[in-house]
Amino acid sequence: MLVGDEAKLRPLLKHHGLVGKLAERVEIIHAASVVTMEDKPTSVLKDKKDSSIRVATQLVREGRADGVVSMGNTGAAMVASVMVIGTLDGVDRPCLANAMPNMKGRPTVLLDVGANVDSKPENVAQFALMGAVYAKEVLGVAHPRIGLLSVGEEDTKGNETTRAAAQILRGVDINFAGNAEGRDIWNGHFDVVACDGFVGNVVLKSSESLAEGIMRGLRDSLKQSLWSKVGGLLAKGAMKSFIKRLDYAEYGGAPLLGVKGVSVIGHGRSDGRAVASAIRAALRACEHRVNENIQTSLQRMLPTVSSGEGR
Amino acid sequence: MLVGDEAKLRPLLKHHGLVGKLAERVEIIHAASVVTMEDKPTSVLKDKKDSSIRVATQLVREGRADGVVSMGNTGAAMVASVMVIGTLDGVDRPCLANAMPNMKGRPTVLLDVGANVDSKPENVAQFALMGAVYAKEVLGVAHPRIGLLSVGEEDTKGNETTRAAAQILRGVDINFAGNAEGRDIWNGHFDVVACDGFVGNVVLKSSESLAEGIMRGLRDSLKQSLWSKVGGLLAKGAMKSFIKRLDYAEYGGAPLLGVKGVSVIGHGRSDGRAVASAIRAALRACEHRVNENIQTSLQRMLPTVSSGEGR
Repeated sequence: MLVGDEAKLRPLLKHHGLVGKLAERVEIIHAASVVTMEDKPTSVLKDKKDSSIRVATQLVREGRADGVVSMGNTGAAMVASVMVIGTLDGVDRPCLANAMPNMKGRPTVLLDVGANVDSKPENVAQFALMGAVYAKEVLGVAHPRIGLLSVGEEDTKGNETTRAAAQILRGVDINFAGNAEGRDIWNGHFDVVACDGFVGNVVLKSSESLAEGIMRGLRDSLKQSLWSKVGGLLAKGAMKSFIKRLDYAEYGGAPLLGVKGVSVIGHGRSDGRAVASAIRAALRACEHRVNENIQTSLQRMLPTVSSGEGR
Repeated sequence: MLVGDEAKLRPLLKHHGLVGKLAERVEIIHAASVVTMEDKPTSVLKDKKDSSIRVATQLVREGRADGVVSMGNTGAAMVASVMVIGTLDGVDRPCLANAMPNMKGRPTVLLDVGANVDSKPENVAQFALMGAVYAKEVLGVAHPRIGLLSVGEEDTKGNETTRAAAQILRGVDINFAGNAEGRDIWNGHFDVVACDGFVGNVVLKSSESLAEGIMRGLRDSLKQSLWSKVGGLLAKGAMKSFIKRLDYAEYGGAPLLGVKGVSVIGHGRSDGRAVASAIRAALRACEHRVNENIQTSLQRMLPTVSSGEGR
């Protein structure tokens, strides 16, 4: 189902060759407005009730859709998902998970990357559990190794929140491997790295920018002389395979874990490939019943991992 | 002055060609022990009073040295600097500043990168002020543009600490440009980016690891075929000039701002060039009277920017 302005979407389908049988597979659901990047996230609850994201989440609420995928305003997509679709029993705060491509060519799930700031220890512990379910069910990691993002490996290192969260996680039946440091997001030592959404968001945006800057800087440096241009051309294919491994579009889309239906939120700058990845991630989350698994897993561990908010 | 085991240092001087007049310029100050990377930072106050870092900071305290440079245990160097050299009047908590090479080929000062976790808003505001003095006096930035690391540009975005810190900074006579996002550490839009030490440490370690991983991955990918090898060789020179810009060794050494003498702490893996950069940074901090400037700047802004701890 494609949700948006029907008058705009209909011709686009044709334009992209979706005609005949193919077009029949796409159902257009009309939505009169869109939440822009400048709109406040809460606009979906007030003056933009007819926006595409609000209408799309409504489809999930009503059971007409299993999940929703959006590349629009992240805040609005989160608010609509949480308020319209609703939160799973036992989940205090849904969180945004992001699969980062690590140096072993596998994904490391970093979460929360921006749904919550000022998280309590119980929230961060829940993020870790939800990340473990996601890594196992959607990314196919058999026994996900879970880390808590901190400033040193030792148990004593960290801030008040992480030290208390570690205490909770040590009492729970998961593969908790202790503190992870900044470098552990990339070296593949952990499959899941949990943190407060403030920290995760800063690390995510900083990393995207740094990686893009390095690639752009190298490309520019190759234009300096004829020799370096020729060298760049000869090396292009080999470098491309590596760059592809780093490419966020390969993992496109951050699932909002902890809501009652599947919700995947993509980057505003997503290209077709990234959108396809996001849809694939949503599909896999539906097929593997990520939410039921999260709920079972959390209920098994309650009351250890609850701040009481979600009950 | 070179502080350490005289029996080990003396032959090393000769080994590295420091003989005659050159050797006379180096005074060896004997220290019987060293703080290892495994030792607790507080060991400098108890069983390792004869360690090189403790002896070196003692020299600063006694006025025999203007500053200290260490590539050893970061925690121990911080504890020794704060406890032995002491904190400047008005400074609640000294902080570790790190000059990150940004995409405009200039440094962005990120601070605190690990001296303090669970910082109060007043602490973060002080970090911003100290960073501004450092950027101006040591890095030569005329009117440093100061940002507060957060999760969005808008004033409303952030956590409790950053929102309160922003409030303080808006009331102070500096070039405060509002919130910076993760990407702003790299794009050169800010000269100084202030944050809590937990966040700064995670971003620093994550960035070092990501940049190294990308460079290593690209190097490895160039070994794939004869053509890519040849290409890599042809492009080497051009790429080197870019990599040099990114190199932490060029900016080697993080100054601990807010102590009564200059203290620069370097990376444990520093090579000769990084050590030289760290010594150069310490020298410049002494020459430009960074501490006096920090003290004047803070006193001018008190009581706005004090939690009361430091008085």
